[in-house]
Amino acid sequence: MEPFDFSDRTKRYRADLLEFMDEHVYSAEAVYEEQMRAAGDPHHQPRIVEDLKAEARRRGLWNLFHPHPEWGPGLTNLEYAPLAEIMGRSAHLAPEATNCAAPDTGNMEVLTLFGSDEHKEKYLRPLLDGTIRSAFAMTEPGVASSDATNIELRMERDGDHYVLNGRKWFASNAMHKNCRVLIVMGKTDPDAPPHRQQSMMVVPIDAPGITIVRSLPVFGYMDREGHAEILFQDVRVPASDVLKGEGEGFAISQARLGPGRIHHCMRAIGVAERALELMCRRADERVAFGHRLSDSANIRDWIAEARIDIERTRLLTLKAAWMMDTAGNKAARTEIAAIKVAAPDMALKIVDRAIQVHGGGGVTDDFPLANAWAQLRTLRLADGPDEVHKRAIALQELRKHRTPAGA
Amino acid sequence: MEPFDFSDRTKRYRADLLEFMDEHVYSAEAVYEEQMRAAGDPHHQPRIVEDLKAEARRRGLWNLFHPHPEWGPGLTNLEYAPLAEIMGRSAHLAPEATNCAAPDTGNMEVLTLFGSDEHKEKYLRPLLDGTIRSAFAMTEPGVASSDATNIELRMERDGDHYVLNGRKWFASNAMHKNCRVLIVMGKTDPDAPPHRQQSMMVVPIDAPGITIVRSLPVFGYMDREGHAEILFQDVRVPASDVLKGEGEGFAISQARLGPGRIHHCMRAIGVAERALELMCRRADERVAFGHRLSDSANIRDWIAEARIDIERTRLLTLKAAWMMDTAGNKAARTEIAAIKVAAPDMALKIVDRAIQVHGGGGVTDDFPLANAWAQLRTLRLADGPDEVHKRAIALQELRKHRTPAGA
Amino acid sequence: MEPFDFSDRTKRYRADLLEFMDEHVYSAEAVYEEQMRAAGDPHHQPRIVEDLKAEARRRGLWNLFHPHPEWGPGLTNLEYAPLAEIMGRSAHLAPEATNCAAPDTGNMEVLTLFGSDEHKEKYLRPLLDGTIRSAFAMTEPGVASSDATNIELRMERDGDHYVLNGRKWFASNAMHKNCRVLIVMGKTDPDAPPHRQQSMMVVPIDAPGITIVRSLPVFGYMDREGHAEILFQDVRVPASDVLKGEGEGFAISQARLGPGRIHHCMRAIGVAERALELMCRRADERVAFGHRLSDSANIRDWIAEARIDIERTRLLTLKAAWMMDTAGNKAARTEIAAIKVAAPDMALKIVDRAIQVHGGGGVTDDFPLANAWAQLRTLRLADGPDEVHKRAIALQELRKHRTPAGA
Amino acid sequence: MEPFDFSDRTKRYRADLLEFMDEHVYSAEAVYEEQMRAAGDPHHQPRIVEDLKAEARRRGLWNLFHPHPEWGPGLTNLEYAPLAEIMGRSAHLAPEATNCAAPDTGNMEVLTLFGSDEHKEKYLRPLLDGTIRSAFAMTEPGVASSDATNIELRMERDGDHYVLNGRKWFASNAMHKNCRVLIVMGKTDPDAPPHRQQSMMVVPIDAPGITIVRSLPVFGYMDREGHAEILFQDVRVPASDVLKGEGEGFAISQARLGPGRIHHCMRAIGVAERALELMCRRADERVAFGHRLSDSANIRDWIAEARIDIERTRLLTLKAAWMMDTAGNKAARTEIAAIKVAAPDMALKIVDRAIQVHGGGGVTDDFPLANAWAQLRTLRLADGPDEVHKRAIALQELRKHRTPAGA
Repeated sequence: MEPFDFSDRTKRYRADLLEFMDEHVYSAEAVYEEQMRAAGDPHHQPRIVEDLKAEARRRGLWNLFHPHPEWGPGLTNLEYAPLAEIMGRSAHLAPEATNCAAPDTGNMEVLTLFGSDEHKEKYLRPLLDGTIRSAFAMTEPGVASSDATNIELRMERDGDHYVLNGRKWFASNAMHKNCRVLIVMGKTDPDAPPHRQQSMMVVPIDAPGITIVRSLPVFGYMDREGHAEILFQDVRVPASDVLKGEGEGFAISQARLGPGRIHHCMRAIGVAERALELMCRRADERVAFGHRLSDSANIRDWIAEARIDIERTRLLTLKAAWMMDTAGNKAARTEIAAIKVAAPDMALKIVDRAIQVHGGGGVTDDFPLANAWAQLRTLRLADGPDEVHKRAIALQELRKHRTPAGA
Repeated sequence: MEPFDFSDRTKRYRADLLEFMDEHVYSAEAVYEEQMRAAGDPHHQPRIVEDLKAEARRRGLWNLFHPHPEWGPGLTNLEYAPLAEIMGRSAHLAPEATNCAAPDTGNMEVLTLFGSDEHKEKYLRPLLDGTIRSAFAMTEPGVASSDATNIELRMERDGDHYVLNGRKWFASNAMHKNCRVLIVMGKTDPDAPPHRQQSMMVVPIDAPGITIVRSLPVFGYMDREGHAEILFQDVRVPASDVLKGEGEGFAISQARLGPGRIHHCMRAIGVAERALELMCRRADERVAFGHRLSDSANIRDWIAEARIDIERTRLLTLKAAWMMDTAGNKAARTEIAAIKVAAPDMALKIVDRAIQVHGGGGVTDDFPLANAWAQLRTLRLADGPDEVHKRAIALQELRKHRTPAGA
Repeated sequence: MEPFDFSDRTKRYRADLLEFMDEHVYSAEAVYEEQMRAAGDPHHQPRIVEDLKAEARRRGLWNLFHPHPEWGPGLTNLEYAPLAEIMGRSAHLAPEATNCAAPDTGNMEVLTLFGSDEHKEKYLRPLLDGTIRSAFAMTEPGVASSDATNIELRMERDGDHYVLNGRKWFASNAMHKNCRVLIVMGKTDPDAPPHRQQSMMVVPIDAPGITIVRSLPVFGYMDREGHAEILFQDVRVPASDVLKGEGEGFAISQARLGPGRIHHCMRAIGVAERALELMCRRADERVAFGHRLSDSANIRDWIAEARIDIERTRLLTLKAAWMMDTAGNKAARTEIAAIKVAAPDMALKIVDRAIQVHGGGGVTDDFPLANAWAQLRTLRLADGPDEVHKRAIALQELRKHRTPAGA
Repeated sequence: MEPFDFSDRTKRYRADLLEFMDEHVYSAEAVYEEQMRAAGDPHHQPRIVEDLKAEARRRGLWNLFHPHPEWGPGLTNLEYAPLAEIMGRSAHLAPEATNCAAPDTGNMEVLTLFGSDEHKEKYLRPLLDGTIRSAFAMTEPGVASSDATNIELRMERDGDHYVLNGRKWFASNAMHKNCRVLIVMGKTDPDAPPHRQQSMMVVPIDAPGITIVRSLPVFGYMDREGHAEILFQDVRVPASDVLKGEGEGFAISQARLGPGRIHHCMRAIGVAERALELMCRRADERVAFGHRLSDSANIRDWIAEARIDIERTRLLTLKAAWMMDTAGNKAARTEIAAIKVAAPDMALKIVDRAIQVHGGGGVTDDFPLANAWAQLRTLRLADGPDEVHKRAIALQELRKHRTPAGA
């Protein structure tokens, strides 16, 4: 394989996916908007999404993300990444249509690795089938959750059960009509070493004691999949639903973050590509003061800077994927932190400028730009704010120059 | 009066207004949210707003913006500006509570200057009383409207009427429950010199042929006052409802823009102050990795940069106001263009960082930040995108250095 | 006096100074370059500077900075600031020509306030006459000198003398041909409270034990006035040459910083104005790809952004001056810190873009831009790096929001 | 070869080069400074450089850049690029020591491809031997030279000679003590199509009619190799010294630019890595206000942002090299333009922040930072300013979206 080229498998899937996008997805966007408007329920599951799922599955574009050959095509992170980018170009439709949407992807991986037979039968299989969906409950409203030691949801042992009490929010996907199960992070032992205090459990969304308090708006958008605030009051969870073992919560969260970040970042790059295309087209159409906007050197600078930033951020993300594939998540941690900072920031700048070129229309829903901006802005906070990742990168870098050896 | 000090009148109104904010407005914010949620209608006019209006009027904090002593306290732009800033700290409530909300303020000024006796009786008086509201229909969806020669809504003379055909959007306030009248910009004579082609007319919102097509969302927010898309189909307007005269549309729009921009920019500064305060408070509360966020030098840099940018942008805006007062709108055009670019940009950066300090909560409606960001982002497009104003400033500057004399 | 207007005295001096610049200074720049080149000594004192000094004095443009009516016109900081800006437009000539150059200005103020009669006779009078010059030795090469407690130069009491040992650098002006005296900051009592450990002394530059180690280059430039590295080895200073008293060093340094920063910042604004003028002229002259550079929207954006940033940073600096005049240095400390960060940063950006518009010529000495950049970049470190000032501003701001009261 | 890995040949050369740097180059920097200072001539050729050349040659680290196996190791652009980066870490020594310095590299390539047998014997061979050096005379002081049609130096045919008249500047390397030959770009036919008007000729530096007017300073630095302003007055050049043929000047310049930009950009990345290392070490050493600078979150942010930007800009540059290797210079033109904009800009930001962390020392020559900044700043203008490259990228991008097909 050439250094900067795609593998043959990626090329094949890419061609198929691009065809699917062109023939089905882009044209479905207007239908989707129409069906959502007609339903009047922000969490409605519109018919068009189910149609697209059927079509994607028919075309073999299903569970492409899954690294285990038993459950998917078994693509490496580097092979899957360019496909995630393409899905990102129509972020409300393509990831779900191909059963590659977060946080199901991460949850399916976790259940594959650490789930019991019962978990696999009851949740993993229907998730892989796309008949149910799942959420991940980690962030809490009351504390800076990027520091795992801050987590306050208590999981107290009581016989062969744990009793959960606490509050989570930004449990994304929990408002989805098909959501059936949560993976919940909490604290089993406040006295253990900092990264052994947490555990993860599989909890049905309708377990007694669980209250969906509300669906959180994001810059005025009430996303279809939703970001839920969830109250846990004396929720009893069988000990057999602890994933991997008590005290393993932090370790699992580290494992799941790597691939998830690649996916998020590649989709962000897809969003940026879409925004750049819209910016170019609009700049070619509009005329002000006797010139097409695309004749203006300032708009041209924006276009060029967008192209430069997309290209180099994509390469960084692909390299992070490759390092995960070849050296493991831990060795790739600087790269994974780097893309988590770089990709949303890059995409936000491009989307913001695309909005500017679209004038008033840019802030409405007549174009996918305002919504994309809101999603991307949220991404700068999800899985920890930029500042946490920069801190981690800097500590690594400083350490490097403290040792006698050079580069 | 000291160079950088407030006038005595401003000091007095400022004290009164700050007291009103502290005693009534801030505490009304939660009530407002509750009443809006309960209504389930984004354009609902909640009781609390009417209560605040009564209280403000009782306190003599009413129509403070109006420069004509007959209709208001007759403050200069420089005197009113610091009051607009304070109102901006609670932008959904304070401007309307004090009857100082856009675009009514501009419309009231225009009607004062150019309205007929009938206009004054029918519209100006109830606007000044706060019993009705108004909208301004200038921007069009199909063209770059910052170039006035692009405007396409036709106003064709037919006897003693004009017949209006065309489409407007971003007619802000048109969805307000109390909105009764539009001031409409259109083209009466496509063959006239570029800046004599346009006229402005007073049109009741329920005139036959007017269709409110939809309320435009802004970053997912459906603002209470609304941004309407309006279709004009053979709308007949009596010639007596032309403001100032046929061909005077562009001139009126120039006149109204100056004070309006001061108001917008000062309110944006108020938003920035509020965001900075929230950022400081949150940074003091949250702890991550063993430190309060306010102990982190990066957050401190944000706070310092916010303080610097607010101070200097406020001074620039006050100077623009002073120049309008002393040398007129035309002499102040560079300053007015400058603040239109500088103030929203400054405020956006601060609000964005405040969001970042608030973590996930920052993108929700639990804090006023996400909504403020959406409003400010829109302001970078309203009344012409930044690029149009920068172009005007640059042309002035280049001209200056072409003449033999220096500064 | 109008809020944003100049005082009558300032108007008069401004007119005189602008005339002096136009008739003498700008045309002297080429002569200066020529005389310096011919001398082959970077610290040469060229004839043209002495000629300009004579002419400025003849015109009454002398010691304009001095606040005390006994020694100068007695202008307030707000009145003098616009004059410093004009001097900044020709920074190598105008400040020295008018006897308003740093660090003599600060030293003259300190000697006026705290000097003994002998100091006044021996140093202050010839400094005010422009026959000698002086330097200020505070920064040290081995420590972060912005934290005064770090200062290591020891001043040990020995009978009625102090014995100085240590090393200073960036003693600006110490290489000037006319430099005769140093004001030296050092540590008299390491066990005193942090801000009582330091003292300031008046030391002749030829005192035994003083070695000028070298003249420091700044981005390749060896400035005429020079930035010296100075070694102090058992330098004996009479106790009568301590300024104000032992332990008063920190207090004096705080007092002198305020006006100095106003001067520096206003001169930086003058540099920015000059760069903007050069950028405009060059953009009008050069043609590439069929268009004048001044027709390009990106260059126009730079011009507009420069105008905006100059205006608002000037206002901030003037306000800081006014606050010092009316409320004192301490009350103005946030504003003084703010301009120290804002002015050099603003000017650097403008000069950098002016360089870009000048192409290769911009980095040479054919235009004053490259040198101006180097000076301004150094200013971001002199008197403490930006980060120290931002820290101070942030701590003030945080404190404000911890108290119960609002703004 | 793995996607993001080095080839075996690169790995071998990298190891050897790193060893050479560690054992000889870094320690030679102080010697070099000392020898240059002692000489008192900015264009002195110090002994240490010749020593390093001998050592590098002994180690087989010689002419690594040359793509033709006859003259060098025959590395591809992708293989050589990481070596250029390492050389960039000591930019005054390593490139010349290994005979890989600009503009000799480009000149050697051009002579290899288009030189006559006489050119090869007289110039190419000693250039490859490192016994002489060469310059490239393209830029002119009077016009925007990035637009080749602007070039004014006339080359008029007169029998079997051309007669050259005109003025060049920024002829880099022309002040080098060993410089013997110029490659000169000029206009042979002003009436030909725009890109057929120019020709390139081989001209000895001591040809009659050539005057080296001056050596241009760059931000106060008089570089050893020098940037010459050269006057051509009736310089007679035999027709046999035209490279490739009359009218081929533009085509040759395009061919030489590609590899040259890779080299420049990779060296800039090397500079950035060095600056980051210096920033980390300094931040670990200095203490202010009770904390090491490396404990400050703002400095940590700078470190992290530097790491992110270096990584992604390196990948972009490597991809550009790979595209040149596999698809040719023309297909790679967007990538080549992209790195020309991205790499110097990235490195400048990092060097600037490293300066800031070094305090006053950062702007002196005690650290290589100030000089590196000046070099990098010049690079944003050499081979055309950023704006020209952005324009080219934007035109490509706009074209892409005008065709019916998508990406």
